[in-house]
Amino acid sequence: MTSCKTRIVDKPESNCGTVAVYDHADAAYLAYLALYALQHRGQESAGIVSSDSEKLQKHVGHGVVADVFSDQKTFDRLAGRMAIGHNRYSTTGGASILNAQPLVANMRDGALAISHNGNFTNSGTLRHELVQEGAIFQTTTDTEVLVHLIARSRAAEMHERIIEAAQKIRGAFSITMMINDKVYALRDPDGVRPLCIGKKNGAYIIVSETCALDLIRATYIRDVKPGELVEISDKRLRSHQFAKPTSGHKCIFEFVYFSRPDSRIFNENVDKVRRKLGKNLALESPADADIVISVPDSSNTAAVGYSRRSDLKFELGLIRNHYIGRTFISPHQKMRDFGVRVKFNAVRGILKGRRVVVVEDSIVRGTTLKQLVKLIRQAGAKEVHVRVSSPPITSPCYYGMDFPSKGELIANKKSVDEIRDYLGCNSLKYLSKEALLDSVSHDNGGYCTACFTGDYPISIEEKIGKYQHE
Amino acid sequence: MTSCKTRIVDKPESNCGTVAVYDHADAAYLAYLALYALQHRGQESAGIVSSDSEKLQKHVGHGVVADVFSDQKTFDRLAGRMAIGHNRYSTTGGASILNAQPLVANMRDGALAISHNGNFTNSGTLRHELVQEGAIFQTTTDTEVLVHLIARSRAAEMHERIIEAAQKIRGAFSITMMINDKVYALRDPDGVRPLCIGKKNGAYIIVSETCALDLIRATYIRDVKPGELVEISDKRLRSHQFAKPTSGHKCIFEFVYFSRPDSRIFNENVDKVRRKLGKNLALESPADADIVISVPDSSNTAAVGYSRRSDLKFELGLIRNHYIGRTFISPHQKMRDFGVRVKFNAVRGILKGRRVVVVEDSIVRGTTLKQLVKLIRQAGAKEVHVRVSSPPITSPCYYGMDFPSKGELIANKKSVDEIRDYLGCNSLKYLSKEALLDSVSHDNGGYCTACFTGDYPISIEEKIGKYQHE
Amino acid sequence: MTSCKTRIVDKPESNCGTVAVYDHADAAYLAYLALYALQHRGQESAGIVSSDSEKLQKHVGHGVVADVFSDQKTFDRLAGRMAIGHNRYSTTGGASILNAQPLVANMRDGALAISHNGNFTNSGTLRHELVQEGAIFQTTTDTEVLVHLIARSRAAEMHERIIEAAQKIRGAFSITMMINDKVYALRDPDGVRPLCIGKKNGAYIIVSETCALDLIRATYIRDVKPGELVEISDKRLRSHQFAKPTSGHKCIFEFVYFSRPDSRIFNENVDKVRRKLGKNLALESPADADIVISVPDSSNTAAVGYSRRSDLKFELGLIRNHYIGRTFISPHQKMRDFGVRVKFNAVRGILKGRRVVVVEDSIVRGTTLKQLVKLIRQAGAKEVHVRVSSPPITSPCYYGMDFPSKGELIANKKSVDEIRDYLGCNSLKYLSKEALLDSVSHDNGGYCTACFTGDYPISIEEKIGKYQHE
Amino acid sequence: MTSCKTRIVDKPESNCGTVAVYDHADAAYLAYLALYALQHRGQESAGIVSSDSEKLQKHVGHGVVADVFSDQKTFDRLAGRMAIGHNRYSTTGGASILNAQPLVANMRDGALAISHNGNFTNSGTLRHELVQEGAIFQTTTDTEVLVHLIARSRAAEMHERIIEAAQKIRGAFSITMMINDKVYALRDPDGVRPLCIGKKNGAYIIVSETCALDLIRATYIRDVKPGELVEISDKRLRSHQFAKPTSGHKCIFEFVYFSRPDSRIFNENVDKVRRKLGKNLALESPADADIVISVPDSSNTAAVGYSRRSDLKFELGLIRNHYIGRTFISPHQKMRDFGVRVKFNAVRGILKGRRVVVVEDSIVRGTTLKQLVKLIRQAGAKEVHVRVSSPPITSPCYYGMDFPSKGELIANKKSVDEIRDYLGCNSLKYLSKEALLDSVSHDNGGYCTACFTGDYPISIEEKIGKYQHE
Repeated sequence: MTSCKTRIVDKPESNCGTVAVYDHADAAYLAYLALYALQHRGQESAGIVSSDSEKLQKHVGHGVVADVFSDQKTFDRLAGRMAIGHNRYSTTGGASILNAQPLVANMRDGALAISHNGNFTNSGTLRHELVQEGAIFQTTTDTEVLVHLIARSRAAEMHERIIEAAQKIRGAFSITMMINDKVYALRDPDGVRPLCIGKKNGAYIIVSETCALDLIRATYIRDVKPGELVEISDKRLRSHQFAKPTSGHKCIFEFVYFSRPDSRIFNENVDKVRRKLGKNLALESPADADIVISVPDSSNTAAVGYSRRSDLKFELGLIRNHYIGRTFISPHQKMRDFGVRVKFNAVRGILKGRRVVVVEDSIVRGTTLKQLVKLIRQAGAKEVHVRVSSPPITSPCYYGMDFPSKGELIANKKSVDEIRDYLGCNSLKYLSKEALLDSVSHDNGGYCTACFTGDYPISIEEKIGKYQHE
Repeated sequence: MTSCKTRIVDKPESNCGTVAVYDHADAAYLAYLALYALQHRGQESAGIVSSDSEKLQKHVGHGVVADVFSDQKTFDRLAGRMAIGHNRYSTTGGASILNAQPLVANMRDGALAISHNGNFTNSGTLRHELVQEGAIFQTTTDTEVLVHLIARSRAAEMHERIIEAAQKIRGAFSITMMINDKVYALRDPDGVRPLCIGKKNGAYIIVSETCALDLIRATYIRDVKPGELVEISDKRLRSHQFAKPTSGHKCIFEFVYFSRPDSRIFNENVDKVRRKLGKNLALESPADADIVISVPDSSNTAAVGYSRRSDLKFELGLIRNHYIGRTFISPHQKMRDFGVRVKFNAVRGILKGRRVVVVEDSIVRGTTLKQLVKLIRQAGAKEVHVRVSSPPITSPCYYGMDFPSKGELIANKKSVDEIRDYLGCNSLKYLSKEALLDSVSHDNGGYCTACFTGDYPISIEEKIGKYQHE
Repeated sequence: MTSCKTRIVDKPESNCGTVAVYDHADAAYLAYLALYALQHRGQESAGIVSSDSEKLQKHVGHGVVADVFSDQKTFDRLAGRMAIGHNRYSTTGGASILNAQPLVANMRDGALAISHNGNFTNSGTLRHELVQEGAIFQTTTDTEVLVHLIARSRAAEMHERIIEAAQKIRGAFSITMMINDKVYALRDPDGVRPLCIGKKNGAYIIVSETCALDLIRATYIRDVKPGELVEISDKRLRSHQFAKPTSGHKCIFEFVYFSRPDSRIFNENVDKVRRKLGKNLALESPADADIVISVPDSSNTAAVGYSRRSDLKFELGLIRNHYIGRTFISPHQKMRDFGVRVKFNAVRGILKGRRVVVVEDSIVRGTTLKQLVKLIRQAGAKEVHVRVSSPPITSPCYYGMDFPSKGELIANKKSVDEIRDYLGCNSLKYLSKEALLDSVSHDNGGYCTACFTGDYPISIEEKIGKYQHE
Repeated sequence: MTSCKTRIVDKPESNCGTVAVYDHADAAYLAYLALYALQHRGQESAGIVSSDSEKLQKHVGHGVVADVFSDQKTFDRLAGRMAIGHNRYSTTGGASILNAQPLVANMRDGALAISHNGNFTNSGTLRHELVQEGAIFQTTTDTEVLVHLIARSRAAEMHERIIEAAQKIRGAFSITMMINDKVYALRDPDGVRPLCIGKKNGAYIIVSETCALDLIRATYIRDVKPGELVEISDKRLRSHQFAKPTSGHKCIFEFVYFSRPDSRIFNENVDKVRRKLGKNLALESPADADIVISVPDSSNTAAVGYSRRSDLKFELGLIRNHYIGRTFISPHQKMRDFGVRVKFNAVRGILKGRRVVVVEDSIVRGTTLKQLVKLIRQAGAKEVHVRVSSPPITSPCYYGMDFPSKGELIANKKSVDEIRDYLGCNSLKYLSKEALLDSVSHDNGGYCTACFTGDYPISIEEKIGKYQHE
């Protein structure tokens, strides 16, 4: 055997949206609407597999849901009363359409379709073992590892095979599956990513966030529990606990930024938590200023919270252009600082002569925020005070959030004062970790705050090794 | 001659965006960025014609600017230090790409490129006269009428020919043109549509709204005046007054809805006027309620104004989905009421149990607002009070705004009480015409309020005839 | 006025295909099939305009007919019992879709659609005059000149206007038109390009070549005569002679290469003439050889003729690859001589050890033939004798054939012996002009042989000037 | 386990083209040219995988090679000195792009790319066994079965694993593979499909037919032998015999129709055999006629052979239209008999009043030939005598040729006289099986003639079962 093997280039997976529909005449269409509501969880590719319990039909494509499913005929083809769907987050470099989910594989039980949101932390090890046993891999996704484990299980019943496989994997995962006339959904024992169950008349709907239930007018029933496998067949739902839940390590960044404000995840309204983040930020870090503005749209809610608690007026000082389209030709080198203006414009009449608090939900690299501060100053702001509704991000996420590597995270390289100078603002304050945790309920277990603290609650030895070597 | 002639189907033109760039190394690219900033003025098609003073290059296409100009090579081809561009507003039914602007025509002075925002009210008469004289028309646009008039003028100088032609046309028009090494811009004597002049280093930039100057970091100089023809050549600007300005009939609906809040038009900040509309609305029509929400994004500013004056809290009760993409497959018949949920979702945690004021900028047909009221109620609102920051729209616009026909305007068929019942809200109040006019400055002449009053300041006999017969 | 005017880049037009259908339920579909049969006359763009006597519908696109009209819905849209169509020949550099025919223009009589095969030799002069009178041009085609002349005619009846216009133009033209409920077809007084009339049940069909009548199972009636305007209305055909026919200058190159062998043009079977060319070539220039092969497919018929008369066996020594597709990525620089192999392969078993006569219909630049000779030699041919079934091409065509400029024509730069050396063949013989003319019937007047002789029967002063200056 | 499993719809594979390039700077580009030359073996999809010994790059798409690889950038991406490619034959119903080859799979030895021409006759059984052992399948292709067998082999060396796998499969296969820095090629023990080895400077090239070597100017070395596995690594070729060759069952239909006439397969020139078929046909079944014509282009060579032996003149009586493009809109129901005219036209001047022999290589359904006979008669032929250069096709092919099912084969339902009546010709004669076999060399073993005789030399129990049940 050669020491240097050919390989398909590997790529870490990142946060995504997933959906399953069970027993509805318009299953594929409901999956489409749900994916549409979950578009913020992934814009790189979208896909749906439908089933009439005998034959699967698949349609996947690059781009946003509305563009991938732009032809009525696609829905005619996606027949059947069951469907699962997937949105993949945008990652750098064009990923192969072959990796686009849902993944479909024939095994002895039938053809399995699977849609996965999360990241396995021991997929390298598992993949190596499987390959040694003669398994072949056609994608570079974590998901295929799980499919192999299911296919190789010798257990009698399908749900036992899934359980056996799920018990071998580590990491964060919220998964929907479909085989023959059954739908399955499972969530890792730490409950890192959200996943919930809804009903619409007799149909069951599983989605990443409740905003997708709202769009299709389904009723929220409950979350899939950490360590639970849900099996839907014969028009009813059965629950299997495949692992004991941990103390809980729900991703707190879902509240800070990722989930939609109109969703309810982890048994809390995102909007309410996000508002509390803003309020706590105002308490911890008030500013001697005239107005509060938001970096739209993701920081709107926190900014309103800040405004309410600080008694500073909330103003619409930045306007966001929503017509960006699929391909925006980057400005020429010499026009580089047009960049941020393509997305945002400052409202001079509001900012001129004012002392302005800018609320931002988080800072990753800081490059866009630096341009925004400049834009706000050029619009006449007298002072610019940046307030961030989460702590400094110092560590990469190995559980599905698509952060850059450690070296690119600005808070990993600079002190808060240095970041303030880099941004060019008059003051910069982050929310403390304590205030962050104070903003969320602790009734349902704890949170993962690894990106802010570097304390990884789920084993990541393998990932660290990998990142170090590449 | 046959009494029944073959014809290309005629279509009224509607509000658009226009831009001209004079003497810049990246003329086409600046035009592209400007069109991008003016995207809200038209999403149906986009086009740019560039010129190196000898040869014109043209690129037009259906769709939004970022999609039409998605290839770097397009900019390599669009060479030269001059460029004009155009955005066309979406109209029902796919319009021919042959009508897409800028229009280019060879005449004895050279090849003329022209981009037009507005609507001529005597184009039918002029077209008939021209055709009788042997002119041929290849488009159904007003713009071609103007080009013929210019080509047929016997005046010695190009600016004289344009003046002669402009004096023959009636209606609303803000136009940019380019021929040989000159750029021209002109605006109708009533000043209905905005048009302004900026500079970026030595380059002149003409655009519909100042937000386009902001994006490309150009400095606003002044508006093109009503009745003025601006000629830019030999690196300087000359002004010709082709018609005496009237008392002024600026489109007040540009402030209510159409222009971007970060623009300055008609010498006023749109944001400021729109805030004042909200404040006046609060004064005229207070509500016994708990919170104020906006129909995002167009009503945000007015809602903030209403909130400030009424001392009711401003909340983000509706979330808008911005990922709609180019083609959204309409819900099946039986799923019709998903419609509004595709665009908006209600935030239950904010609305539940509350008495809610919903601020909307204007009501055309009322169908979307009716669904929104239902959505807000389903999210648990106790009461819904709709407040509209403009008067009832009762009359079509013949000056470029793409309203539906009279019969489709809800305020033309129903009383305010009937509309309230149709919408299903607890109360409904419109801003009065007096308060509307009180919200704007009258230093620079008057406004056209025809859509609210039916008083058309510019002759429309021809248009009325046409609309009656079809 | 500036001395240096902006302009749209001008491009000479070239040979094309044209069709008109009058009074058939599937008019657009018949036009499509006819264009398909005429595909060899132009592959750059294709277009059809249909009419229901009131409204015109147009569809044009780049590429071959089957690709431009690849959607059944297009035909649903192209309604009406009348249609005209056009194929444009491929020219170097991507031509604008705005130039794609049929051209449609509104004039006082209605909307006129026009499709033109040929080239006006005085279009520059006419265009200049029209532009001085205030006409505007939106394309750079000859065709628009004719449309202007028709629109400006003051004659009472449409056919009189067309006649008045046609009398002003010089050059080669075979044209179909449609306005209101009438179809027109006209042909220049020299009869340079073919144009014929067929019937299918009650419907009239006008096409460039009879092979298009065959495909749609229409019956050939007669040619449109030189100098004749045919008018079809009220279900009958009327003939107007707008100019006295000359002694006749039919393009002899249509027989040599351009027309399809299964067509009948100028009252003769192309196949029969082409065979005669091969026979006369064998008589004039026999070869001491073993076999005769053709450069497929255009030289097949002449090669069979040569074989028959010379008693040398006809063999299929070259195989042509017909799967070239729309875009073939050119070989890398270093692989340049793969070029000809992409189109042709030599059959070693046939060629090896043989003395081979290669029959080619004509030589323009000679580059491909040079590679073919090499290919044949590499396949083992002992001797290669090239026989050309037409005389040396020494002069450009100003009447529609898309030859390169004079400098690029090999026979204009080299003697026959030098060409032989360039090609690397053992002998090279061209057909004499006398034998060429002997191959065609002279019953219906004479031929244009300008490309072989430089004797231009129709005035071309303007064109020569133009070519000299560029 | 459920009795009714979901499944991806299965589809029989059919004849294809394959290529491998080893150690050339332009490996992907050479593969592209080779696929281009093999385009006749498959137009449904095309694909290339390149390798730099470490990373694989893949590009596949629907359509012909020139369209799938129409972008220079594709070749920039397909880096490396090794490449394999594949053409898939058009089958009814749009096949999934996921099935498009080359297939790529990661296994413990590295990433394997594989391209397969042929059909396994025991793939169902093997697939069932593999699935029972926990293998998962992502495509419905035979090829994936082979990949699994290789991955599961416990042999030490890669070539031993391939041999172990190859020994398990039955049927017809000519396969190229690539893994790490090695290329492999293998051919079934019966030698059903062609596969040959060429060299170009130091590079090895493996292709289905020699015409692909000609295009890229490689030198033919030898065929891959039946039962041989060729391994190319360290710049040299090693041969492994994985199975004893049988008496030989080369597909005789490759000579009759499928291969290109300029290819050399099975150690014979296709052109020469095809000519002999025509000659033997003339000896067996002369006709009292005036001329011989071919159904172009596939029957040209046999028709020339018939003409030579019968002393009847060979004429070009049918012209084929080669511009069919990707999508041809089918004629309306009422215009059904335009069908054949879209592809062919008759040359009236040749056929009129003549007694015509039409040589056709084979008859499958007979529908097109029926229309051609009618077309020839309508062109004036006095008599039409059909001569077929192969025996009646009575049985489907299970070894890769894409024939319709037994019920659709006309010779399976009708006697020769009945077929003659169906076609409407004056006489119909097929070549006898004896004359067919007389036309080929028997130096290198025997032939498969199953489609003509129903004698299947390789076990097909499984396939028959499958065909019976569907």
